Amino acid sequence: MDYRIEKDTMGDVKVPSDKLWGAQTERSRNNFKIGASGSMPLEVIYGFAYLKKAAAYTNCELGVLPIEKRDAIAAVCDEILEGKHDDQFPLVIWQTGSGTQSNMNVNEVIANRAHQLAGKVIGEGDKTITPNDDVNKSQSSNDTFPTGMHIAAYKKIVEVTIPGIQQLRNTLKQKSEDFKAVVKIGRTHLMDATPLTLGQEFSGYVSQLDHGLKALENTLPHLAELALGGTAVGTGLNTPKGYAKRVSEFIAEFTGLPFVTAANKFEALAAHDAIVESHGALKQLAVSLNKIANDIRMMASGPRSGIGEISIPANEPGSSIMPGKVNPTQCEALTMVCAQVMGNDVSVTVGGTQGHYELNVFKPMMAANILQSAQLLGDACLSFDENCASGIEPNRDVIKELLNNSLMLVTALNTKIGYYKAAEIANTAHKNGTTLKEEAINLGYVTSDEYDEWVKPEDMVGSLK
Amino acid sequence: MDYRIEKDTMGDVKVPSDKLWGAQTERSRNNFKIGASGSMPLEVIYGFAYLKKAAAYTNCELGVLPIEKRDAIAAVCDEILEGKHDDQFPLVIWQTGSGTQSNMNVNEVIANRAHQLAGKVIGEGDKTITPNDDVNKSQSSNDTFPTGMHIAAYKKIVEVTIPGIQQLRNTLKQKSEDFKAVVKIGRTHLMDATPLTLGQEFSGYVSQLDHGLKALENTLPHLAELALGGTAVGTGLNTPKGYAKRVSEFIAEFTGLPFVTAANKFEALAAHDAIVESHGALKQLAVSLNKIANDIRMMASGPRSGIGEISIPANEPGSSIMPGKVNPTQCEALTMVCAQVMGNDVSVTVGGTQGHYELNVFKPMMAANILQSAQLLGDACLSFDENCASGIEPNRDVIKELLNNSLMLVTALNTKIGYYKAAEIANTAHKNGTTLKEEAINLGYVTSDEYDEWVKPEDMVGSLK
Amino acid sequence: MDYRIEKDTMGDVKVPSDKLWGAQTERSRNNFKIGASGSMPLEVIYGFAYLKKAAAYTNCELGVLPIEKRDAIAAVCDEILEGKHDDQFPLVIWQTGSGTQSNMNVNEVIANRAHQLAGKVIGEGDKTITPNDDVNKSQSSNDTFPTGMHIAAYKKIVEVTIPGIQQLRNTLKQKSEDFKAVVKIGRTHLMDATPLTLGQEFSGYVSQLDHGLKALENTLPHLAELALGGTAVGTGLNTPKGYAKRVSEFIAEFTGLPFVTAANKFEALAAHDAIVESHGALKQLAVSLNKIANDIRMMASGPRSGIGEISIPANEPGSSIMPGKVNPTQCEALTMVCAQVMGNDVSVTVGGTQGHYELNVFKPMMAANILQSAQLLGDACLSFDENCASGIEPNRDVIKELLNNSLMLVTALNTKIGYYKAAEIANTAHKNGTTLKEEAINLGYVTSDEYDEWVKPEDMVGSLK
Amino acid sequence: MDYRIEKDTMGDVKVPSDKLWGAQTERSRNNFKIGASGSMPLEVIYGFAYLKKAAAYTNCELGVLPIEKRDAIAAVCDEILEGKHDDQFPLVIWQTGSGTQSNMNVNEVIANRAHQLAGKVIGEGDKTITPNDDVNKSQSSNDTFPTGMHIAAYKKIVEVTIPGIQQLRNTLKQKSEDFKAVVKIGRTHLMDATPLTLGQEFSGYVSQLDHGLKALENTLPHLAELALGGTAVGTGLNTPKGYAKRVSEFIAEFTGLPFVTAANKFEALAAHDAIVESHGALKQLAVSLNKIANDIRMMASGPRSGIGEISIPANEPGSSIMPGKVNPTQCEALTMVCAQVMGNDVSVTVGGTQGHYELNVFKPMMAANILQSAQLLGDACLSFDENCASGIEPNRDVIKELLNNSLMLVTALNTKIGYYKAAEIANTAHKNGTTLKEEAINLGYVTSDEYDEWVKPEDMVGSLK
Repeated sequence: MDYRIEKDTMGDVKVPSDKLWGAQTERSRNNFKIGASGSMPLEVIYGFAYLKKAAAYTNCELGVLPIEKRDAIAAVCDEILEGKHDDQFPLVIWQTGSGTQSNMNVNEVIANRAHQLAGKVIGEGDKTITPNDDVNKSQSSNDTFPTGMHIAAYKKIVEVTIPGIQQLRNTLKQKSEDFKAVVKIGRTHLMDATPLTLGQEFSGYVSQLDHGLKALENTLPHLAELALGGTAVGTGLNTPKGYAKRVSEFIAEFTGLPFVTAANKFEALAAHDAIVESHGALKQLAVSLNKIANDIRMMASGPRSGIGEISIPANEPGSSIMPGKVNPTQCEALTMVCAQVMGNDVSVTVGGTQGHYELNVFKPMMAANILQSAQLLGDACLSFDENCASGIEPNRDVIKELLNNSLMLVTALNTKIGYYKAAEIANTAHKNGTTLKEEAINLGYVTSDEYDEWVKPEDMVGSLK
Repeated sequence: MDYRIEKDTMGDVKVPSDKLWGAQTERSRNNFKIGASGSMPLEVIYGFAYLKKAAAYTNCELGVLPIEKRDAIAAVCDEILEGKHDDQFPLVIWQTGSGTQSNMNVNEVIANRAHQLAGKVIGEGDKTITPNDDVNKSQSSNDTFPTGMHIAAYKKIVEVTIPGIQQLRNTLKQKSEDFKAVVKIGRTHLMDATPLTLGQEFSGYVSQLDHGLKALENTLPHLAELALGGTAVGTGLNTPKGYAKRVSEFIAEFTGLPFVTAANKFEALAAHDAIVESHGALKQLAVSLNKIANDIRMMASGPRSGIGEISIPANEPGSSIMPGKVNPTQCEALTMVCAQVMGNDVSVTVGGTQGHYELNVFKPMMAANILQSAQLLGDACLSFDENCASGIEPNRDVIKELLNNSLMLVTALNTKIGYYKAAEIANTAHKNGTTLKEEAINLGYVTSDEYDEWVKPEDMVGSLK
Repeated sequence: MDYRIEKDTMGDVKVPSDKLWGAQTERSRNNFKIGASGSMPLEVIYGFAYLKKAAAYTNCELGVLPIEKRDAIAAVCDEILEGKHDDQFPLVIWQTGSGTQSNMNVNEVIANRAHQLAGKVIGEGDKTITPNDDVNKSQSSNDTFPTGMHIAAYKKIVEVTIPGIQQLRNTLKQKSEDFKAVVKIGRTHLMDATPLTLGQEFSGYVSQLDHGLKALENTLPHLAELALGGTAVGTGLNTPKGYAKRVSEFIAEFTGLPFVTAANKFEALAAHDAIVESHGALKQLAVSLNKIANDIRMMASGPRSGIGEISIPANEPGSSIMPGKVNPTQCEALTMVCAQVMGNDVSVTVGGTQGHYELNVFKPMMAANILQSAQLLGDACLSFDENCASGIEPNRDVIKELLNNSLMLVTALNTKIGYYKAAEIANTAHKNGTTLKEEAINLGYVTSDEYDEWVKPEDMVGSLK
Repeated sequence: MDYRIEKDTMGDVKVPSDKLWGAQTERSRNNFKIGASGSMPLEVIYGFAYLKKAAAYTNCELGVLPIEKRDAIAAVCDEILEGKHDDQFPLVIWQTGSGTQSNMNVNEVIANRAHQLAGKVIGEGDKTITPNDDVNKSQSSNDTFPTGMHIAAYKKIVEVTIPGIQQLRNTLKQKSEDFKAVVKIGRTHLMDATPLTLGQEFSGYVSQLDHGLKALENTLPHLAELALGGTAVGTGLNTPKGYAKRVSEFIAEFTGLPFVTAANKFEALAAHDAIVESHGALKQLAVSLNKIANDIRMMASGPRSGIGEISIPANEPGSSIMPGKVNPTQCEALTMVCAQVMGNDVSVTVGGTQGHYELNVFKPMMAANILQSAQLLGDACLSFDENCASGIEPNRDVIKELLNNSLMLVTALNTKIGYYKAAEIANTAHKNGTTLKEEAINLGYVTSDEYDEWVKPEDMVGSLK
C-alpha cells in the first residue's frame, strides 16, 4: 500500500495515500483496535459537517476567518453531507471519550479535501487550510462533539423515531375505530374478566403512544441546546464575541431544526443529561411498544390451540421444520428492539453519571446508543406497522364464543343482587361446568328474564371511548 | 392470641381480634410471607384513603350511596390520613400484582372501623357498611390501586423530591454567585485544562438541576391522570354516569393537587407508563446529582495529598482506625441513593413492559420503587445540602497554586502564535519541568511582555455566566 | 426525653439515656435523615456481632486483648445474635459508604452494654471496654463492613435463597414425573407447535433451576473470602501477626460456614466483585423463575376463555368487583420479585464499578440490595411452591382437545413426504378449517391408514427426559 | 438489477441473481428493514456452518443422508468458515426471534452454492440438495440457532475475551511486582489514608481479574451445552436415534472446543440462561475493569494540578484546542466499553426472562449482545494493555512528597498512645498546618525519638502480598 507522511504535534505518521485523513486519525486507528472499524456513527460525522460549516460562516462573519477559507470549508462539509466521503471516517466509538479524534478526523479530512479542491496535491505546497487553526477555529472537541451528537440525535428522533411511531399510532387509531363494535372478553391477570370492545383495547395502545410521543417531545428543547461556543471548558476561550449565539443560528438554518445555544456551557460539556433525558423517553416508548406487541401476539396465538381472537398477516414461512407454521415475527423483532433500548438506557445512564469536573468522557458511547435506539424504534415501528398492525383483523367467531362462555359476565349482577350472591353464582357454574344463567336461576337469585335483561355483554362496555 | 371469625366469598378465616382487617387481608398475610411484613408503602394506603372518601362522596352525590354511609366511610378515611391506623395494613408489596388485597385491606378496615364508630362490636349485629358493596362501590382494585399509587407518587414528588432538590439547587446557585471571582484550573479528562471560575463550575450544577426539575415537572400531567372510574377493565362497568370525572374532582379537592380523570382508562389500568415516565425523570436527576457529588468529593479530596480545592464540613469522625480523618460522607450517601435509583429505574421499566391485555400486574412493585426513589432523592438532597453543600468553602491558596502551575494556560497563545507553536511550548515546559513563560521566551515565540499581556488566567474565563 | 452526654473525638453529643449507642451513632442519626430510620439490615449487624466476637478471641489469643475484655465483648455479641438489642441499631443504609458509622454503632453498643453487664451505669466510672481501642482492636470499618456483609449475604443465600429454590425445584421435579405421560401441544412463538409431554415441559424448569443453583454455588467461594485483617487500606496495619487467618477461622467456627481469609485484602476493601458475582447469579435465577411463573400463569389462564391446560390453587378471592374470580397471584408476586432483583442487579453493578483507590464506598447499598434479593427470592419460591406449584394439576380434557386440533402434527409427515407437501396439507386445512387427515388424503399424499400410523402425538414426544 | 425466481411454501420471490440466498432470506430482507442491513453477527453464521456440517456428518453416519450430500454440504460449510461468503448473509438481528430466517439463509446459501459446486446453474435442473429436507435435516431453527449462538459465544469468549483479559492481567501482575517497594499514600473515601505500596495497589487489580476470569470460566460448562437434537420443541422429533449426542461430538471435533449435548433440550430451546450466566460474568469483569481504569486515570491525573503519582504513555495529541495536552484515552475507551457491557447485560437479562412455553424468541438480540460484549472487552483489554498499562511508570518524587505530607501516618500511634490522643495530634496538625511530628511532641504524647521509631511509612505496609 502507498503511504504519505502526515504530521501533528507529536511527529510524523504514515497514512494510506488514498485517504483524506491525517496524522491524528491514523494514530487513533492504530491505538484503538476495539470492535469493528468505523463504528463511530456517520450521523455524528454529519453533525460535525453541519457545525464545521456553521463555525466557518460565523468565524467569517465575526472577522476571524477569510471568506475564501469559509467557502473552502463549507464546500467540503457539503460534500460530506452528500455522503461523498463516508469511507474517510474509519474511527471507532471506543476512542477517547471526548471524541477528540473524530473531531480531528473531520478537521483533517476537510483540510486535505479543501487542498484537493484547490487543485493541489495533499502534502504538497502550502496548506490551503489547516485542521486546527482554520477548520477547528473557535472550537474544541469538548464543545464540537456534544454539538455533533445533539444534532445527530435530534435529527434521528424527528426524522426516524417520531414518524415511525406516529405511523404505527395512526394505524392503531384506525383499528381502534374499525373495531369499536367488536365486543370481546376482557382479561385481567391473564384471566377472564368483564367485556370490552376490541376497539377500546386498541384505544389504550393509542393513548400509550400519544403519551409517549408527548414525553419524547418534552425532551427536545433540552436536546436542542448546543454546546458550541464553550470551547475547552465552557468559558468560550478563543471565540470571538457573539460567536456562540450566531453559530447556533447558522446550525439551525443549515439543518432546518430549532437549535439554540445552550444557556450554560459548563453543563453542556460536563454533563449529557439531555441525552439521558431523551433516551429516557425512548425507553418509555419501548415499554409501551413492548406491551402492545405482547398483547397482539397473545391475541393472535393459535391458530387452533391459543387465544386466536385476531389474525395477523402471514409474511413468511414460520418454521424450518414445522410446515405451514406462521409466527408473530414482527412482534418478536419489535420486542427485541425494546429489550435493546432498555439495555441501552442503562449504558446511557451509566455514562451520564460519570462526568468529571469540566468534561464528560463517555460521549461517543452515549451518542452511539441514543442513535441506535432512535433508529431501531423508528424502523421497527414502521416494519411492525406495514407488515403486521395494518393487517390485523378480528376473528369474530372466536371472539364471540370466548365472550359468551365467560363467567365474569356475572359482574353485571353486582349492582342488582350484591357481590356475594354474584360470586356464589360464578363459583357454582365454574364447579359444575354449567352456565351462569342456569346457576343464577337455580340458586333463585334472578329470573330468566331478569338475567337476560341484566347480563348483556354489549351493555357492559360503557360509553367510554 | 384472641381471634374472631371473618368471612369472604371463599369461607371463614380467623383474624386476630384486636385487628380491624377482615378475611381477605388475613388470607393475604398467610399466603404471601415474602420479605418483611407491612412492606406495602403507607403512602399507597393514604392514597386509598383519599380515593375511598372521594368515591363515597361521588357515589352519594350521584345517588347510589346514602349520606350516612358516605359519612361513615369518610370518617374512617380521615382517621387513616391522620395516621391513626398505620398498624392495620400488614400486607406486603409481593402480593397479587393488582394490589387487590391491599384494596380489600382498606375496604375491610374502613368497614370494621365504621362499625366501631357506630358504637358496635366488630362481627356483631348488622354490618354498618360492607367492604365490597359500600366501600368499594363503583370501584375495582384495577382502578383503585393505580389511582392510589398515582396519588402517592405525585404527592411524594411535589412534597419531598422537588423541595429537596430545589433547596440544594438554591444553595448551589448561591455558591455559584459567591465563587464567581474564584479563578481556578479547569480539568477535562481529569487532566489540567484552561481556567474557569469556581462559580462557573457550580453554575453547571445549577443548570443540570434546573433541567432535571423541568424534566420532572414535564412528567406530572401524565401522573395526574387517575384511573378511577375504569373499574374492572377500563369500561367503567357498575359506575353511575358522570362518576369518573366527579370522583377525580373530589380527589383534587381533598388532596389540593391537580388530579384529573384519565382520558383513556384502558391505558390507565393496563399500562403504567406514567410511573415509568416520572421515574425516568427521577433517574435523570440521579444522574445529575451523581456528577455533582462526585465533583465535590474530588475537589475536596486530601486534605494534603489530594486536590484540596474546596473544604466541606467535618460532620463526624471519619474512621474507626485512622484518627482525625474526615470523609465526604454526604457525597457517599447521595451517590448510593443515585445508584439505587438507577436500579429502581430498571425494576420500574421491567414492570412497565409486562402489562397483559387489560391489566398490568406489577403495580405494587412499581409503586414501591417510585416512592422509594422519590423519597430518597428528596431526603438525600436535603441532607447533602444542610450537611455538606451549604458549608462548602474554597481553599483559595490551593486553588491559586494549582492554577498558576498549569501548562494549559498556553491555550491563550493559540490565537496569537498558532496551535503548533503553543504545543511546542507546553511540551517543552512539561519535559523540562519549567514554566510556560520561560520556554515561550526561550523558543523565541513571544517576548516577556507579550506573555504577561496575553496569558492572564482571569482573562481566560470569558464573560459567560 | 432524658439524655446523657457521650463523647467522641469531635466533642460531646446528647444521646437518649435509654439507648446503648454512643456519640458517633447519634451524629449519624442526625446527619443522615434519609428514608426510614433503621434501614441498615439487621443481618449486617449480626454479621458484625460474629466478627467482633471473633476479633476479640483472636486478639486475646494473640496476646493483645485481656481475656476479661474478650469475654465481655463476646457476651454482648451473643446477646446481639439472640436478637436482644435489635432496637439499638437505628442507622440507615444511606450513610457513609464505608459503613463506618454502623461499625461504630456496634462498637458503641458493645462497649456500653458490656459496662452494664459489669454492673455499672453507662457514662459513670472507668470504661469497662472502649469502642475504638478494645472492640475495634485490629480492625477498621474498611475491613469489618465488607466482612459483615459477606457473612450476612452468605448466610442469607445458604439459609434462605437456596433452600427456597431447592424446595420449589423439588416440587417441579415431582410434577415433571407425575405429568410424564400427559401429551400436550407444544407452543413456539406462542403458536401451536409439535407435541411434548407436560412432564417434559416441567423438566425444563427443573433444569433451569438446577443450572441456576449451580451458578449460585459457583459464586460462594468468592463470597466466603473475608476482608478482615486488612484494616484501613488492606495492609493489615495495627494487627498482630497471624491475625487475618485466625480471625477468619473463628468466624467459620462461630457461623458454621466455610469462611476463609481473602488472599488479597486490597481487592477485598476496594472492590466488591464478590457481591456483584453472587448477585449476578441471583439475577440469573430471577430470569429463570420469571420464565417459569409466566408459563404457569399462561397455561392456567381462563378458566374458560384462555389456555386452561392446568389448574392452580384458588387461594383468595381474586377481584373486589368481579365475583368468583381466581387469579395467578403467586405468579404475580414471584415475577414482581424477579423484576426487583433485576433492578437491584443494576444498583449492585453500579456500586461495584465505583471503588476508588483503596476503598469502595457503596458498601451499605450493595449489602442492602443483595440481602433483599436473596431474601425475596427464597421467600417467594417457598410461597410460590406452597401456594401454587405444589397444587398444579393438569386439565386433561382441555389438553387433549387442544392437542388433537393442532395443525402442527403434520410435522410427523416431513420424513415421509417432505416438508413442502406437509406444508401444503397444513395450509389447506388452515384455510378450509378442516382436519389434517382430511386434507392429507384429499391431496393424495397419504392414505387414511398411513396417516393414522404416522401421525401419533404420543410417538412425537421422543425418548428424551 | 437482474433477478431470478426462488420459491418457498408461500410462493415465488424475486432474488438478485448474483446472490446465493433464496426465497425466505429475500422475504426477511424485505420484511425487516430495521437498522443497518447484515447486522446479524457473522460469528453466528459461522456457528451455523459448524453445526450444519456436523449435522450432515451425523445424518450420514446414522443412515439418513447419502455421503454425496454430506460432502456437498460440508464443502460449502468449509467455504463459509473460510470467509468466502460473508456477503451472502444480509439479514438483521431484528427479525423473527427464533432466528428462523438466518437458519434458512444458511440453508439456502448452502443448497444453492452446492448446486454451483456441482457445476450447475442456480434455479436450473434438479436441486443438488434442498434447504429444508437436506441441509436442515434432523434440525429446526429452534435448536440450530441456540446451538449457533453457543458456538459463537463460546469461541469469542475463549479466543478473544479471556486472552485479552489475561494479557492485561499479566501486565498488571508484572507491574505489581515491579512496584512492590514503592511506598505511597493510601486513599479511602478519596481522602488521605495510611500507606501501602503501589505494588499492593496493583495486586488488588490482579486479584479482581483473577476472580473475574474464574467466574467467567465457571460459566463455560453451561455455555458448552448444545440444543441441537431438540428440533422443534425439545423432543427431538424427526431425528434419528443417537443423533443429539453424536452431532455434539462432531461439533466438538470441528471446533476443537468441549461442546456437549444439553442434558435437557426443553431448557435449551425455551430459556437462554447460559447466555445470561456468561454475560453476567462479562458484566462482573466490566465492573472490575472500570475500577482499574478509574484508578489509573486518577493516579495519572495532572500533569501538574492533579494527583500525578504515575505516568501513562502519551499516544496522541489530547486536545484540538489545548496544545500539549495528553489524556488517559485508553482508560476512557475501556470505561465506555464497560458502560456498554453493563447495559447489554440488562438487554440480555430482559430477553432471558421472556421465553414462553417451548421457545425463547429473543435469541438474535441475546446473541448479538453477548458477542459484542465479549469482543469489546477482549479488544479493549488488549488495547489498554498495549497502549497504556504496559507503559505505566511511577513518579517517585511526587509519590514520596504526597506520602510524607500525610496526616494519616498518625494511625501508627494508635497502638502506642490510643486512638483518641492520636486523633488529637492529627486534628491539631490539620488545624495549624503543621506536621504530625511537631504536634505529637508539642502535645507531649511522644518524644522525637519515639516518633521517628514508631511512624515509619515503610513499616506500615505490612507483609501482605
